[in-house]
Formats: sequence, structure tokens, C-alpha cells
Amino acid sequence: MGKLLAQIQKPQDLHKLKSHQLEELACEIRTEIIGTVSKTGGHLASSLGTVELTIALHLTFNSPKDKLIWDVGHQAYAHKLLTGRQKQFHTLRQYGGLAGFPRMQESPHDIVDAGHSSTSISIALGLARGRDLAGTDENIVAIIGDGSMGGGMAFEALNHAGQLKTDLLVILNDNEMSISPNVGALSQYLTRLRTDPTLTRAREDVDLLLKKLPGGPAVVRLAERLKGSIKYLVVPGMLFEEMGFTYLGPVDGHNIPALCRALADARHRKGPVLLHVVTKKGKGYLPAEQKPDCFHGVGPFHIQTGKPKHTCLTPTYTEAFSQTLLSLAEEDDKICAITAAMPDGTGLQKFRERFPERFYDVGIAEQHAVTFAAGLALAGQKPVVAIYSSFLQRAFDQIIHDICLPNLPVVFAVDRAGLVGEDGHTHHGAFDLSYLRQIPNLTVLSPSNLQELQSMLKSAFLWNTGPVAIRYPRGTGEGGTYTRLEDIPTLNKGVAKQIRKGTNGAIFAIGAAVSLAAEAAEQLARAGHDPMVVDARFVKPLDPRLVTWAREAGFVLTVEENVTSGGFGSAVMELLAEKDLQVPVHCLGLPDKFVTHGSVQLLREECGLTVENIKGIFIELERKNEISGR
Amino acid sequence: MGKLLAQIQKPQDLHKLKSHQLEELACEIRTEIIGTVSKTGGHLASSLGTVELTIALHLTFNSPKDKLIWDVGHQAYAHKLLTGRQKQFHTLRQYGGLAGFPRMQESPHDIVDAGHSSTSISIALGLARGRDLAGTDENIVAIIGDGSMGGGMAFEALNHAGQLKTDLLVILNDNEMSISPNVGALSQYLTRLRTDPTLTRAREDVDLLLKKLPGGPAVVRLAERLKGSIKYLVVPGMLFEEMGFTYLGPVDGHNIPALCRALADARHRKGPVLLHVVTKKGKGYLPAEQKPDCFHGVGPFHIQTGKPKHTCLTPTYTEAFSQTLLSLAEEDDKICAITAAMPDGTGLQKFRERFPERFYDVGIAEQHAVTFAAGLALAGQKPVVAIYSSFLQRAFDQIIHDICLPNLPVVFAVDRAGLVGEDGHTHHGAFDLSYLRQIPNLTVLSPSNLQELQSMLKSAFLWNTGPVAIRYPRGTGEGGTYTRLEDIPTLNKGVAKQIRKGTNGAIFAIGAAVSLAAEAAEQLARAGHDPMVVDARFVKPLDPRLVTWAREAGFVLTVEENVTSGGFGSAVMELLAEKDLQVPVHCLGLPDKFVTHGSVQLLREECGLTVENIKGIFIELERKNEISGR
Repeated sequence: MGKLLAQIQKPQDLHKLKSHQLEELACEIRTEIIGTVSKTGGHLASSLGTVELTIALHLTFNSPKDKLIWDVGHQAYAHKLLTGRQKQFHTLRQYGGLAGFPRMQESPHDIVDAGHSSTSISIALGLARGRDLAGTDENIVAIIGDGSMGGGMAFEALNHAGQLKTDLLVILNDNEMSISPNVGALSQYLTRLRTDPTLTRAREDVDLLLKKLPGGPAVVRLAERLKGSIKYLVVPGMLFEEMGFTYLGPVDGHNIPALCRALADARHRKGPVLLHVVTKKGKGYLPAEQKPDCFHGVGPFHIQTGKPKHTCLTPTYTEAFSQTLLSLAEEDDKICAITAAMPDGTGLQKFRERFPERFYDVGIAEQHAVTFAAGLALAGQKPVVAIYSSFLQRAFDQIIHDICLPNLPVVFAVDRAGLVGEDGHTHHGAFDLSYLRQIPNLTVLSPSNLQELQSMLKSAFLWNTGPVAIRYPRGTGEGGTYTRLEDIPTLNKGVAKQIRKGTNGAIFAIGAAVSLAAEAAEQLARAGHDPMVVDARFVKPLDPRLVTWAREAGFVLTVEENVTSGGFGSAVMELLAEKDLQVPVHCLGLPDKFVTHGSVQLLREECGLTVENIKGIFIELERKNEISGR
Repeated sequence: MGKLLAQIQKPQDLHKLKSHQLEELACEIRTEIIGTVSKTGGHLASSLGTVELTIALHLTFNSPKDKLIWDVGHQAYAHKLLTGRQKQFHTLRQYGGLAGFPRMQESPHDIVDAGHSSTSISIALGLARGRDLAGTDENIVAIIGDGSMGGGMAFEALNHAGQLKTDLLVILNDNEMSISPNVGALSQYLTRLRTDPTLTRAREDVDLLLKKLPGGPAVVRLAERLKGSIKYLVVPGMLFEEMGFTYLGPVDGHNIPALCRALADARHRKGPVLLHVVTKKGKGYLPAEQKPDCFHGVGPFHIQTGKPKHTCLTPTYTEAFSQTLLSLAEEDDKICAITAAMPDGTGLQKFRERFPERFYDVGIAEQHAVTFAAGLALAGQKPVVAIYSSFLQRAFDQIIHDICLPNLPVVFAVDRAGLVGEDGHTHHGAFDLSYLRQIPNLTVLSPSNLQELQSMLKSAFLWNTGPVAIRYPRGTGEGGTYTRLEDIPTLNKGVAKQIRKGTNGAIFAIGAAVSLAAEAAEQLARAGHDPMVVDARFVKPLDPRLVTWAREAGFVLTVEENVTSGGFGSAVMELLAEKDLQVPVHCLGLPDKFVTHGSVQLLREECGLTVENIKGIFIELERKNEISGR
């Protein structure tokens, strides 16, 4: 650890450093972040971009009395390092270690748990009103990226803040990127603010011009009248001014003295203030500066080259989706693809390159992404919307109201379903089977391997009668992939696959849990048991043969990487109850709590989603069933 | 029906009328709307406000080739009357009759089913891109109120449209109201646009001024430079211009020739255009003009006076909530209340009057409402968020990520849960028990009568340890209410209430279904059966005694006014499975489809949620249980 950083036990210790030492501290922080993330993986580029801003914020404000709310929270590594967590920093994102995002349990300086986008202004405004009601005087600061600012709820919060007029500072951390290069009219507007000198000079120019005017009475009257509206109109950051904010900036986000001056100015202003700070994503680490989107969320890498330490030879679900969609789109020019700021993460980058006309990155705007797809489907297109499971929660109402109610043929590619590992509790796709299967008209599938994903995707476009959601996990999958489109088999809707015949007890599994179930069954068979194993494939509609199989098997263990509340196992029980079949059913899945961060393997062990546990439960069920059967 | 209206079988028939007849037609349409809604109830004020706009739209555009997308859709009665549905108009909102909102099944002129806010620009943009890909030339028009424009997803769509730059017309129907008087900085901005003459004159003034300038070279240079930025900056509607739209207006929304001129202008422009139309909610019917919020959604009323035909003597759940919250807030100054544009509908109007400092109407912004509550709770306040069940779907992710993950003590008052009647499939609160109970840390309750609601609300603030959701139906409830706060009993978390002891078979019911179950049990008892009846009160956590009771009773019928997929019955089965109890369970609830509109009674009959059906199922279960028990 750098020698200056070692002296900072709490943010107030920053005041012990001399001004010229602050840049050195920034260097030490960067070295610490790069060193750690090169081993642990993490959100490198965002956190490198906010080092100076974090130092300036902690110099200007008195955390934790003053509240710093980091939007999303993936840019808060420097904040962790400056708030007494240097010594644990090497445990970042590891099971039992520091979280990759702000975490209330970790530190009083982390005001709220974070991980999803565009929430910080709402949180900050609530805190500000709470302060007003309590009559205290702390400062409330939200730090939000330009990408997150495009999310609808950020606008809702600006709109409310502009009306309430309470003291509140919003730092717009403008790095011209969300996760990939930023999109949307707002982004173009910010670019103009940064780059158009006439814009920032306009107000001064008007004053100067009016001073130089000759004194003819008509002209003076006109000029005076104009001055009123000019004063009101010609300021940079008009969009924010119109929303009731005082706009300050833009200021260089890597210049600590300039930042401190701007923050001091902002702190003393009344009402809502927006300070526009321009930063560079990946700042100070060349590979990340050059390819910030590749260093948004990274695995372990070699510091010298920026190259990943582990290259993965087996393809991921995301890659299988990407490749199959591309093949399908070659054959069908109605297929179009939508992402919410995740062209790389969702595997749509290749689609973008091949079919730019049929590709849409709508920015961090999941709600619009889904309803925009509804419009495309109404116009006869065949849209696929690829969004991570936990972010798709943002569009729950739009899936119901805009897609499933009018029963439109939209395909949801629900990536990162189940446990995602190191990103932790905000990012696990723990709920989708439950929140999707309750929606009428929606078909819900989950593949047990890469080839199944290919089949499901191909089939979804073939059915083309209503909405279909396919949920699949992060990371590599079992088996290889078909390379030719015509080799990919298609599925009939609602048909499960019995993958092991068995006479005593059944394991009904879905998605990534199928391979665990199959392995457990193999081991059980070797130990003299004879379980049936079914890959359910569909969570909705369920294959009616599950009832027959359950009857034959005598008891059922369901396994899924989704909460058991309302999940796949629950659906199986509903089906059996509907068909008047009473057999013992045990549902294994994610527990009724927010699962922490760590490797998927460790998290699965914590949740009991292991071959060992499946075997244990199965044997216990078998034993009970024998007793009750006697 | 008016004689002009009778001639309009399709929108194109409008061209047969002479210009001076159009105003007369508008009168006829108003008469028809007022006459019908006075009998059927409905969204009167919004639809009266858009009569001339609808005529002008259908004169200018060629529906259904050109697409008119009505945001929310409660302003589309005139549209229904002009698109061949005059003869059925008297069936509005009745079971089997016309829907109160646009409905694809009803007419090719209804482009998509609607009912929720802020979706129209996303739909329109999808249609516009679909048109571009197909190479056709239809016009796409979204008509959106100023209230809906404050919803985040409308901003997301504007942001995307401003980037895509395809041809698209957004009509901002500015009536200075959402449902209640509008809120937010955007609304204040629109008011300035409407009322500030310097604003609309500013551009002309600048041109004039520059022309009058004397010719000194420095001044000229300065002026030229300024002109560039002025041209760019000094236009009304800057906020929309900054987002990439051409802003036109404001135009008088009750002047048909002016509207037609503006629409013709807008139609010929390239790229995204926003036309600002100023209308008056309730226009042409004095009681509605004077109290537009009281005539937003109304029951049958006397045309002469505007007074409701049916006055209800028994209090509603909403009133019980309203009154109890007020009493609680008198005792506890930390309680604050949040609504998303529904101060009247949610019963918070009295709270607003009594405690203006602790009341927040955030506009149509459910996402922000929830996360703003998180901020208040973090600051030590005790917020209650009152939102209708189907609109709370909009904030699903915020409930998970911003409230339940940090486990904040926020109370959700989930009104209009279950079947809501005439507003139909977009408005039924069919899903909340399923989507809420899967979320860790959240306590989920539903009262069986008004006094239970009072107890639950009082208890929720007493527990004050984590989030609590209380879901209750529209309309009047069983029983009276406690008037004194100290008389209201408090509940222990997770404690159900056995309301009828019985020896053979149990009915576990929740919420509004409890009274149906109790009545069925009474009738069954008279016929010689002996059912147990339990008011579960809690969907999460479930009372563990349900297991004991189920064992004693031998079989279980669950009843709920929520989809059975993942609902209360499903939770009961999960509990019994967890405790290794196998008894027959039958789950009765809403079906796996979008339920239509009509009276709650008729809809309950359609869904089988009746005393008769409960009796029938119970007797059938009893019979089967006897057979299997032999």
C-alpha cells in the first residue's frame, strides 16, 4: 500500500496531507485499485475515472455526517480506500470479503446498498427531505454517471427535486460512456456542453453586447426586454436549469484543485445544484483508457498487457445466444435486437456490426427497451430484447402491460439468471422464474446446456405467436454448440425431456440445475438408488407428463437456481395439485434472502445447490416415502 | 345520437362535413360522452378535453394506416365515437361491452391495448422504426398528457427518439393536470411556456435587435458569434429541442382550424416533432371543468348537478386507510406519506391538508416514489407509499433493490388489489401477492375487513423493522371501523386467525376472499359439512399453525383474489411441502389470463370466485378425500 494512503484511516485524515501530496495519493489509489482488480476482477474503468473526484468530495464534505450516494456504486473503490477499508481491499468481491458495491453493513460511509442504476437522486432527495424535517444541516450529494442519468427514474427524481427546491447536490460524472459508449439525445447534449465554446460564452457575450449598444429608445427597450429572457435562457446546462437546478461546470474531473473550488461553490448554493464533472473512464491505466468498455467489469488480468489471465475455451451461454441469433437473423430479416447499454455483456456486439439497421442500444432504459420492442412487434418485426435477469426487474410492468397483455411476439433473452458470483446480491438473477411465470400469455424456458439454448431461441422465433422468455446463466455451459442453423433441433411448446428413466423418486430440474441433478442421479444410481431425472425445459407451460412421471416415481425433488418462493418447484406443485396428485414434493432452490457475493461455487454451497445436497435430500425423501408407504 | 355523429362511420367520413359543422360535431360528441358516462361511469374529464384534438387528428391523419397511440388511453372516447363504435358506445365499460381504454380486439384504429401511463412514445418509436425497416410511409402519432410526460419511461423514449431522428409526432396534451393538479419541475416549465410572452417572442426579438445594431467591427463580430448561439438557444420548448425534437406550439387545443394547421405543419416536418397542445380537462361540462380531478374517473352521476347517483354510506378500504393513517400521524410526527399522482384515489388528500410538510405527490413516477421513500426511511422517517396494485408493478425493481435489500421500514399501502371492475384488464391488481411474496425481507398482509386494515396499518408502524406491504381491494369493506386509535388492536407478525373451527376440511383465505369463504362455510355447515375457515392475514410470513390446521382438517382449499400462479395458495403448498405434510390442496384464485372489464360481481363469477363455487369445490374435495381415505 502507498505510504500516503496508509495514513488515511478516515476521510478527515485527508486534511493532513499537503496540496501537492494529493496527486501522489491519487496515484497510490490507482496503483492499489489496479493491483487488486488485476487479481480479483471488478469494475476497473469506472473506479479509475473517479479517483480525483472522490478525493475532492472527501476533502470538501464531512462523511458520514454529509452523505455521499454513489449511483450504481461500481465507481466507489477509491471511496472504500479512503474510508478505512484499505487493509481489507485485497478481499474485494471475494466470499466474505469487501463487496464490489457500497454496502451499509460494511461502513457508515456507505449510505445505502447499491448496484442498479439511476437510483441515487431519489435516495438523495429522500435524505434531503428527511434532513429538512429533522432540522439538521448535513449536505447530501448524489454522484451519478451520464449513462445512469438517461434512466427514467433519474429524470423522475430531477423533476421532483426541481419542484421541492431543497438543498441537494447532484454530481453528473460525465465520462461519455455508460458501460459502452453512451447513447441518446441527452448524451449528445452533454457532448455539446463540453465542446461548444459559443455555448459557455454566450451569456458573457450577451452582457457585453448589451453594454455596447447605442442608446436609441426603441433599441434600448427591446434590449431590456430581451435581457430578461436572455438572462433566463442563455445559460449552459439549460436542460437542467429548466428542471429547476442550478447548473455548474463543466469542470475537469481529474484536476483536484479545480474540483475542490467547484464543490465549495456548489456546497454554498441554495436549492438543487447540478455540477457537471468531466472524467475519463479508465484514467491512468492505458489499456483501460483505450478500451474502457472492455474494462468495465473484468476478470483477473495481467497488469503489463491488460490481457485476461484466464482465457476460456468453452463457449458461454452469452456466446451461444450471440452466434445463434446471428445465424437466425441472416435467414430472417425481420429479426431485430435491443439492448439496454449492454451490447458486449449480452453478446449483441456482433449483431450490431452485422445488422446495424436492426440493432438498438437504448441506453440504461430497460422500461423503454421493452415497450419499444412492443412497437417493433406491432409493426411486424421480430424483436429480441436481451437484458440481464436482475435488470429486467425494472421492466416488470412493461412486460405485463405492453407485451403480454397484447400478446406480442417478443423474445426476451434473460441473461445472468441465477447466481452471478462476485457482483453479489444486487446482480443475482434470483427472481425471474417467479416474476415471469405468473404473467399470462408468456412462455418461460430455461436451457440446461448450450445446445438447448440454441434450440429454444430458434423455436421461439418459429412459434412467433406470443411472448417468450428464455433465461440462462452467466458463464460457460455444458456441451458444445451446433454451428449450422439447420442442425439445431426445434422444440414443441411445453415438452420436457426425461434424461434418466428411473423407478423410485424423480428429480425435476430446470436450467443450470439440470446438470447438478444429472450428476447427483449418476452418483445415486451407483449407490443403488434409481432416480428419474427430467429436464423440464419449460417453466410455463409445464409439460403435463410431469404429473404422470411424478405418479410413477412416487416422490419429487425439484431443483432450480431461482428463489423457491413462487418458482419452478412451486409451479410443479400447482400442477400436481390441479391434477389431484398427492406425492411428496421437496423444492430446492435459492433461499428467501439476498445472497452475498463470492464465486458461484461457494455461493451454491451456501445455498445448498450442490450435487451432495441433492443426493442427501433425495435419500431422505426416499426414506420418508418408504416409511409412509409401509 | 347527434345527426352529424351518426354520419361518421369511419374517420374519413369527417371530410364530408363542412368546416362550420365540425364544432357542432364536437358538441354532439360531448353530449354523447356526458350522457353515456353519466350512466356507466368512466374517465370523463380527460375525454372531454380531447374532443377537438381527436377531430383534428382524424381530419389530418388517415387512421388506421396512420397510427394514433393514446397514452394511458382514458382520453380516447371521442376516438371510439369517430371510429365506428357510436352504436356500442352505451355499453362502455360494461361486461361484454366496449372497453374504457383502447383495445386492439375492438378496432383496427386501436393500435395497442393501453391503461398504464407514459408508454406511448416507446410504442410509437417502435412503430416508426418498424415502418422505416419495412419502407412504408405511414405517420406515427403519440398523444401524451403532461402528467404522463413526467413518467421516467417517457423521458427514456424521448431520449432514444432524439437520437434515432426518425419521423415521429408526439402531441403533448397539456391540461395542467395529471389526475390531480400536476406537479414537478416539468409542469412548472410547461406553465412558463404557456404563459411567458417574452419566451415565445425572444427569438424574434433577437433577430430584430441584431438588425438594428450599428456597424462597429467588434460589435458586429460579437453579434455574429452570438447569433449562432442565440439561434441555437433562444427558442421556446428548449427542453424538448435539447432532446432532439422540433418543438411546435403551444396551440389552443379547442380550436379545430388552429389544430389542423398545426398538425399539417407537424406532419410535413422531418424527424421527431413535439406539438404542444393546450387543452382544458372537462371542457364543455361545467362541473367537470370546475373540479376536473373529481371527474377523472367517476361513477354514474346526475348530469344536471354533477352529483353522484349512488352515495355510499359504508366506508371504503381507502377511507379506512386514510382515516387511520391520519390518526397515526397525529401521534407520530415521523410518519410521512407519498403518492404518485393519486392523492384522492389513495385517500391521502386529508393527510396532505393536515400535514403538508410530510406529504409528497411525486407525479406519475412510481419508481421514484418508492426510492424516494427509501431515502426518507434512511433519514429516520416512517414513510408510507400508497400506490394502486397494478401501478406498483412499475416499481418492482425499486421495491427489491432500494427497499427490501437494505431492509428499510417502508409501508406500502397497495390499494385496488384484486379485481377492480370496470377499468378492466390493465387495472386489476391481479399479481401483487405473487410478485411481492417472493422478495426477501418483505412482510405481506391483506385484510379481510376494514378493522383488520386498521390493525395492520397500526401494527406495521409499530414493528418498524423492515418493509411491509398491505394489499386491499377497491370499494367498501365488511364491518365498520374503529374511530379511536387506541381501540385498534395490534397484530403479532405472522399470526393468522381461525374464524371457524371445523373438523373436516379447511378453507384458508386471504383478504377480500375471506368473507366469501366464511359465507360458503356457513352455508356448508347448514348442509351438514363442517369446514374450518382461516383468515391467513399474512401471505408472508405464513402462520406455521396453518400446517397443524391442515393436518387436522385433512384437506385444504385456498381462496384468494390474485392469480394462483405463485400466489397465496402456492405459498401454502410450499409451507406444507417444507413441513412434509401431504394433504390434498386446491387453489382457487384468478385464472392465468388477463381478466376483462365489467362489474366486480360479474368478473368474480367469470373467475369462479363465488360462494357457490367455493362450496362446490369444497364438497368435491371432501368427496375425493373420503374415497382416498377408505
